Amino acid sequence: MVRIRPAERTDVSLILSLIRELAEYERAPYAVRATEEDLLRDGFGPQRRFHCAIAEWNQEPAGFALYFYNYSTWEGRAGIYLEDLYVRPRFRKRGVGRSLFIYLAQIARAENLSRIQWQVLDWNQNAIDFYERLGAKKPADWQTMRLSAEAIEHLAAADPLHCSVID
Amino acid sequence: MVRIRPAERTDVSLILSLIRELAEYERAPYAVRATEEDLLRDGFGPQRRFHCAIAEWNQEPAGFALYFYNYSTWEGRAGIYLEDLYVRPRFRKRGVGRSLFIYLAQIARAENLSRIQWQVLDWNQNAIDFYERLGAKKPADWQTMRLSAEAIEHLAAADPLHCSVID
Repeated sequence: MVRIRPAERTDVSLILSLIRELAEYERAPYAVRATEEDLLRDGFGPQRRFHCAIAEWNQEPAGFALYFYNYSTWEGRAGIYLEDLYVRPRFRKRGVGRSLFIYLAQIARAENLSRIQWQVLDWNQNAIDFYERLGAKKPADWQTMRLSAEAIEHLAAADPLHCSVID
Repeated sequence: MVRIRPAERTDVSLILSLIRELAEYERAPYAVRATEEDLLRDGFGPQRRFHCAIAEWNQEPAGFALYFYNYSTWEGRAGIYLEDLYVRPRFRKRGVGRSLFIYLAQIARAENLSRIQWQVLDWNQNAIDFYERLGAKKPADWQTMRLSAEAIEHLAAADPLHCSVID
């Protein structure tokens, strides 16, 4: 029996374990630099940067969904951006992932949000199939781009030449 | 002479005009359903869903950058997601777009954010070239997926079968 509940402060150690398990599954086991302090500050502090739902199967932690609010200027409404969704291998094929999506959809409906969006690794056909069964589509034509911390540092230090950038 | 400043409540009409001009440029002139009320509520109300910077050229509105905070569970830090960046055609080739990016990079550095991320239309080679000159990279392997409002409604109404989803 699955139960979805909002994460609490006491869950940060569990959340970090789940983030690490997901990174391993994504073939990036050393990519996680986050600490419990980071998650406590950003998920449960005064400046909340993410929200998290925990899935339990008979009281055992089975998975999680971690999300934040994005914004559509076309819709004029916020939406949910799903940063991480993960179900532990031994709890798969029981509707846990689907229940996490239903939970998010119920939040989106209750808060009048425009959409739920996320990214999937393009080799993860199992996940893509699962998402398409839920009704998800791939918006065409958009390519993600990113400035890393190094590029930011470089750019922030740039002399804006003839510009008064910040008063 | 370019100047970048944070948007104020009195800018919502200008912001909506810039959002519409950008949608036209993106070949989706009828996609904008947002109203001034939406932008006032979500950009300047108690629950702030986006932030906005206005670029001026000799006091004339020349462009804007609209962004919100995303979150990296690998980094354990928030980042900037740049939803919209636009420079009006007659103000191009003067460093306005670059100045908007410098402004964002300075915010990212001051707030210890992990990265700046956005999406670009894959046919917009001018924009891709500009971003690459700023130091941006395309992270490989990730495919965007999305649940529309209709799909959310459908899913939120789903009977989660044997599941107690929300208490």
